[in-house]
Amino acid sequence: MSNSAPHIVSAFEDALKRLKSAIVQMAGAAETQLDQALSCLTHRNPELALEVVRSDAQLDSFEHEIEAHCMRLLALRQPVADDLREVVSALKIAANLERIGDHTANSAKRAAAIEVFPESAPLLGLPNLGRLVRQRLTAVIDAYVDTDAEAALRIWNTDDEVDALYTSLCAEIERSASTAPGQFTAHMHLMMIAKNLERIGDHATNIAEVVYYVSTGKPLLDERPKADRSCDPAL
Amino acid sequence: MSNSAPHIVSAFEDALKRLKSAIVQMAGAAETQLDQALSCLTHRNPELALEVVRSDAQLDSFEHEIEAHCMRLLALRQPVADDLREVVSALKIAANLERIGDHTANSAKRAAAIEVFPESAPLLGLPNLGRLVRQRLTAVIDAYVDTDAEAALRIWNTDDEVDALYTSLCAEIERSASTAPGQFTAHMHLMMIAKNLERIGDHATNIAEVVYYVSTGKPLLDERPKADRSCDPAL
Repeated sequence: MSNSAPHIVSAFEDALKRLKSAIVQMAGAAETQLDQALSCLTHRNPELALEVVRSDAQLDSFEHEIEAHCMRLLALRQPVADDLREVVSALKIAANLERIGDHTANSAKRAAAIEVFPESAPLLGLPNLGRLVRQRLTAVIDAYVDTDAEAALRIWNTDDEVDALYTSLCAEIERSASTAPGQFTAHMHLMMIAKNLERIGDHATNIAEVVYYVSTGKPLLDERPKADRSCDPAL
Repeated sequence: MSNSAPHIVSAFEDALKRLKSAIVQMAGAAETQLDQALSCLTHRNPELALEVVRSDAQLDSFEHEIEAHCMRLLALRQPVADDLREVVSALKIAANLERIGDHTANSAKRAAAIEVFPESAPLLGLPNLGRLVRQRLTAVIDAYVDTDAEAALRIWNTDDEVDALYTSLCAEIERSASTAPGQFTAHMHLMMIAKNLERIGDHATNIAEVVYYVSTGKPLLDERPKADRSCDPAL
């Protein structure tokens, strides 16, 4: 009986590892979905868009499973300190990944809805923004895997790169719309896709906050480099 | 010493009551912020918009406080069953209210940015959509206060009312834009405000899911009446 405590500890550590690996798997699914949505931007492909929408339901299931896993861990193991942070952080990361899936699915649907892409610059800017938020998502999940507070902080501190690109893209889309008055709907979709991508960047930044918190035990309380100045006037 | 257990139970119950009351207070702040943003739609008022943006920071603080409260409760009281659900649900509701604040602040900024509202119908539809999501937010917080699973389910099941109004509003905005080709930016802001309001409706529905779960112990796993069909083609 003397080694029952290590047994329990080890079972809990295994459960935490499984939790982390479920998050990584969910993130992988979100990344694939985002890649496919970005591909819909450059090659009009309604079938692929449909696949993105379908895989969004898979992300919802992932979130439910991770939540159920976390609730079981909280109820049965009653973790404290680092372990408690680990479990609550998994809940929060899963919620952010689920929202990323929503924005991605919406982007794919909108991309497929644009019958003729405006022959102008904005489209070029969209994949750039897409690539940037995709890189940030990968980087923040790497930081999560490595419990790397420094990397998380770096990602958190460079949120304004997304904002800058988004802002210039909004201006580009507006300019393009003004020269093609009959294409309001197409430009509206481009604008909404840009907004979705910016939001995905926001969620990556949220995840960076969570990773910092789980790694250090301290919250990143200050205002983060604020999104959404873009297209919005200084007040 | 014989009554130390009741003491502990009662302290925990008090802590849960304080948690619930913090959520209700946060929801009240979100409602006020939404009322002010809706008022910015009908009376152009940059000062009020600025106030909405400032009060959004207050919602962020609320969320941080509620999170810290929940973490303390989880670590010190190690709740199980109903009590655990209560604590985790508070975390989730606070996260949804914080997002509602973001969408509200963004709407207020955009409303203030529209120098001349297009002389057409969409504007009329926006306050209607605003009122509907406002009612749903109030109703779902009432359901939370009363732990009323039936009310939560009713709210969850009528999410499509928001979608229907949002869809017709998008069509209206597109029509208006096609007759006023020089007003792309104004129409884009109207469209983004509509999207923000629809998202606020989504968050109210998310909260309904949480209230149902906390009231019954069962998750609402089925697909909810799905938002975002609007403006998006059937795939």
